[in-house]
Amino acid sequence: MTVAILSLGTELTRGELVNQNATWLAQKLTELGLEVTEILTIDDDDQRIEKALERLSEKHDAIVSTGGLGPTTDDRTTACVANLLGVPLQTDEESLLHIKGLFAKHGVPFAASNAKQAEFPRGATILPNARGSAPGFSVLLGRCRAFFLPGVPAEMRRMFELSVVPALPQPTGRIFFRRLKTHGTPESRLGDLLAGLEERHQVTIGYRASVGEVEVKVFSRAKHAEEEEAAELRAEQCLEEMVRRLGSTVYALSDETLEQSLGRLLVERRLTLGLAESCTGGLVSQLITRHDGASAYYLGGICSYANQVKVGVLGVLPDTLERSGAVSEETAKEMALGAKRALGADFALALTGIAGPAGGSTEKPVGLVHWAVAGPQGLSTQQRVFRGERNQIQKRAALAGLWSVREAVLALA
Amino acid sequence: MTVAILSLGTELTRGELVNQNATWLAQKLTELGLEVTEILTIDDDDQRIEKALERLSEKHDAIVSTGGLGPTTDDRTTACVANLLGVPLQTDEESLLHIKGLFAKHGVPFAASNAKQAEFPRGATILPNARGSAPGFSVLLGRCRAFFLPGVPAEMRRMFELSVVPALPQPTGRIFFRRLKTHGTPESRLGDLLAGLEERHQVTIGYRASVGEVEVKVFSRAKHAEEEEAAELRAEQCLEEMVRRLGSTVYALSDETLEQSLGRLLVERRLTLGLAESCTGGLVSQLITRHDGASAYYLGGICSYANQVKVGVLGVLPDTLERSGAVSEETAKEMALGAKRALGADFALALTGIAGPAGGSTEKPVGLVHWAVAGPQGLSTQQRVFRGERNQIQKRAALAGLWSVREAVLALA
Repeated sequence: MTVAILSLGTELTRGELVNQNATWLAQKLTELGLEVTEILTIDDDDQRIEKALERLSEKHDAIVSTGGLGPTTDDRTTACVANLLGVPLQTDEESLLHIKGLFAKHGVPFAASNAKQAEFPRGATILPNARGSAPGFSVLLGRCRAFFLPGVPAEMRRMFELSVVPALPQPTGRIFFRRLKTHGTPESRLGDLLAGLEERHQVTIGYRASVGEVEVKVFSRAKHAEEEEAAELRAEQCLEEMVRRLGSTVYALSDETLEQSLGRLLVERRLTLGLAESCTGGLVSQLITRHDGASAYYLGGICSYANQVKVGVLGVLPDTLERSGAVSEETAKEMALGAKRALGADFALALTGIAGPAGGSTEKPVGLVHWAVAGPQGLSTQQRVFRGERNQIQKRAALAGLWSVREAVLALA
Repeated sequence: MTVAILSLGTELTRGELVNQNATWLAQKLTELGLEVTEILTIDDDDQRIEKALERLSEKHDAIVSTGGLGPTTDDRTTACVANLLGVPLQTDEESLLHIKGLFAKHGVPFAASNAKQAEFPRGATILPNARGSAPGFSVLLGRCRAFFLPGVPAEMRRMFELSVVPALPQPTGRIFFRRLKTHGTPESRLGDLLAGLEERHQVTIGYRASVGEVEVKVFSRAKHAEEEEAAELRAEQCLEEMVRRLGSTVYALSDETLEQSLGRLLVERRLTLGLAESCTGGLVSQLITRHDGASAYYLGGICSYANQVKVGVLGVLPDTLERSGAVSEETAKEMALGAKRALGADFALALTGIAGPAGGSTEKPVGLVHWAVAGPQGLSTQQRVFRGERNQIQKRAALAGLWSVREAVLALA
């Protein structure tokens, strides 16, 4: 049993938009135990869309399609499906009322072209849109169940959860998965440490590396319903052994980010955090505050990009800057102490470095970052030369700094 | 003449990775005047890979494929191509030396499995890898030129520029494009304002909306070499009329971001900027400092997430917080003045609001943001209720704030 994802739109084939919808759907379908073997993106061309639908429906048990349901002339999906099925388009009065209602609610005049979004191939099952105007629909193409969803991510996701998941073909056996997240160990080294586990537990292990972290997933497939309990147990046992082997490099058994994990730790211990950022330029602060609930432990930060701010706001001594330079252990220390004092936080993290591409020297190369953590039990410092381009250096430094705070908090206990 | 992009890898069909490579390639190929009509992603399955190559080669003039060239058993691309062509794999001694040299340079022992990366289908043209170990290759599949590149983005991009671009089939006529970027006007409204231009100038207009901004591109296709000059002129003339019609909502005629455009403006006028961020939590600072050269105008910022930081570092009066609340015009004003003073900047932008999802009330709903700009000629304030989820509200507020600084700087002249 296989599933295909079909993404429709010239904005995708022209590279104007990253296909986040397909990735999201692929992940969801995989988690449901279904096997996605093909993701196809086609431009807004009737003939190519119909050919693609024909081919995919012959090869797969289900198709999940996104895009092309809008009101403009380049939205072709519905007409193509009707044509392929050899049925006329019919207006669905309930959908038309829904769309007109939305327009009225937002005080926008209803244009005739919008009525197009209430037309469906005769016999189609209509999938309501809880978040926008265009409903989706599903039809049978031969023996393949095909779902057509809008391209707007929030609308698509809601419709998938509400209307597609219950109607998808049931996989012959469920897939169980477990995951963990690590910091500071390269993917290849993790692979060596986990060697032999796939065979021993009859699971598949997948790695997903991004800047500064690696997520490791264990997949365990049940061949039929009776085997499900055993399959889940295999995933669980493999996870336990992975955690034992990897030790302190593991910081979460969920998809939690490092800053979320640290935040949870600080909230549990009723501790607060403040920042002094130079080379990371506010990135650490942004990582923390993109999650709601940050105010429970995060007081704020000072981005001291210019030296005058290091001196004026953080109280770094001009003499230190003169003697050791802005990128130095001494400056990082004074920044951390200054931030702890100015912000009134239990812990303060300070980072100063050379994010590049310019500004490096033989002695202080691009990528060099000094960071310091000031806490209730004193001060610790570290330095490293991070590799990569500017944004990668910033991200690696930000995560390394957060990791040091995590270690300092754990050392308190 | 059409081109297909083929992305190989189970990590893509499982949704573990967003397919950035395909988007990058699609954009590059489109800019070269080639028409990408299909982007296909296939999992690591020999039979499906070979079937896909067979089908794509019959329909397209060129295929650009990425992934599956690595040393492990799930890297299937090279073997599949050889099988499809009915030729054996042959080791290329020069590539083998290159790979062994890289291993020696990094002090990594050379494993037998790595020799696989120096094997190619007999007769293939080898594409050198300037940034990593796995070379790419190209072959003719019937009349279709197929290129096989590694999946690592940096390696893939360099190889595409150096070895694929010169060998691609020449489009029958080049495509010329121009672009502009806008802030503050919804896509549908831009469409209305630009109505009729496609017909008048015989061009295609494409929109790419992201949170807080819309990029508008004009594509003009020359049918043959003699028509190229006229086609470029059409794009240019259309762009001029677009700029006239859209007026001050346009901030760049390139792919420059709003913060880059503002930065350029400030550097030209030798002015400096400082920030006081509450609800945006460091996002504005991060947007500014992700680009190199920011230190030429950006002094730093204070993320005053907690009220004690608003008072202690920015000098907001406790009385103001008590009387008007942290999310108020008064607080935004005092934050801006405090940041201007503390950072010693010509301009200071302050933002305070409710990013949500919690913390809203009837009077002050989620999405409400007050912002203030303090400059050499005084203080201006604005407020708005931004829609969307937390991160969208933060991004919209950040860009709206930067836009206000832009207006204040332009008003100086």
